[in-house]
Amino acid sequence: MDLSIFDREYHHQFEVTPAVYNAFQQCSGDFNPLHTQEEFAKSKGFNECVMYGNILNGFVSYFVGMLLPTQDVIIHSQDIAYKNPVFMNDKLDFTAKVEDISEAVQAVIFKFAFRNESGKVVAKGHVQIGVL
Amino acid sequence: MDLSIFDREYHHQFEVTPAVYNAFQQCSGDFNPLHTQEEFAKSKGFNECVMYGNILNGFVSYFVGMLLPTQDVIIHSQDIAYKNPVFMNDKLDFTAKVEDISEAVQAVIFKFAFRNESGKVVAKGHVQIGVL
Repeated sequence: MDLSIFDREYHHQFEVTPAVYNAFQQCSGDFNPLHTQEEFAKSKGFNECVMYGNILNGFVSYFVGMLLPTQDVIIHSQDIAYKNPVFMNDKLDFTAKVEDISEAVQAVIFKFAFRNESGKVVAKGHVQIGVL
Repeated sequence: MDLSIFDREYHHQFEVTPAVYNAFQQCSGDFNPLHTQEEFAKSKGFNECVMYGNILNGFVSYFVGMLLPTQDVIIHSQDIAYKNPVFMNDKLDFTAKVEDISEAVQAVIFKFAFRNESGKVVAKGHVQIGVL
């Protein structure tokens, strides 16, 4: 496959709805109080419960599986760094672009970022995909 | 906090149940055919649908939020590389241990691996946490 088809900028808006939050909790089994108990979150300096960072990795899954120009892809590896907290009902502006293409191994590395409605980067990282 | 409390080996068994799979799908909105259509997965050389890699990142969330000796933690960053496919109902043996401790910034880096019932590493990576 000619991997230049991937070489454009991608934009999508994700929203951390209660349904997304509840589904992540069911998937992970993670009930850490930072994410589930408002008083605990407040005692740690946050105004409300902090959302699970790995919800954003679920959104990265959506990017790879649903937003690329072909569905014949699989994730090889990925990384993410969390920069600012995400809260319930935050709308996150997702952007991604190609950082590197390796025709030899049919792999593409994207760099991505999530920004909140204040324009702050809440997380950024990379995802390498392979073509199936 | 004295971060030496984190310095031990961690073991846990995770299972990719239909409930976990369905919850991840709801969380991410990812319906890529590799994960949802058996015929598509077979056409790509797999015997059945491949599970979403980011389900394992949900399990990493559980590790950090529920298995560490204190709940006063938050994920700073994480990475994962997928080595072998995971299928429905796979039982995954998770192991983690400390790779680096920085008392100065109150951060701990763990390296982790998931192995399937054949003993094959299906994924490995790192997660850096901070103490709240």
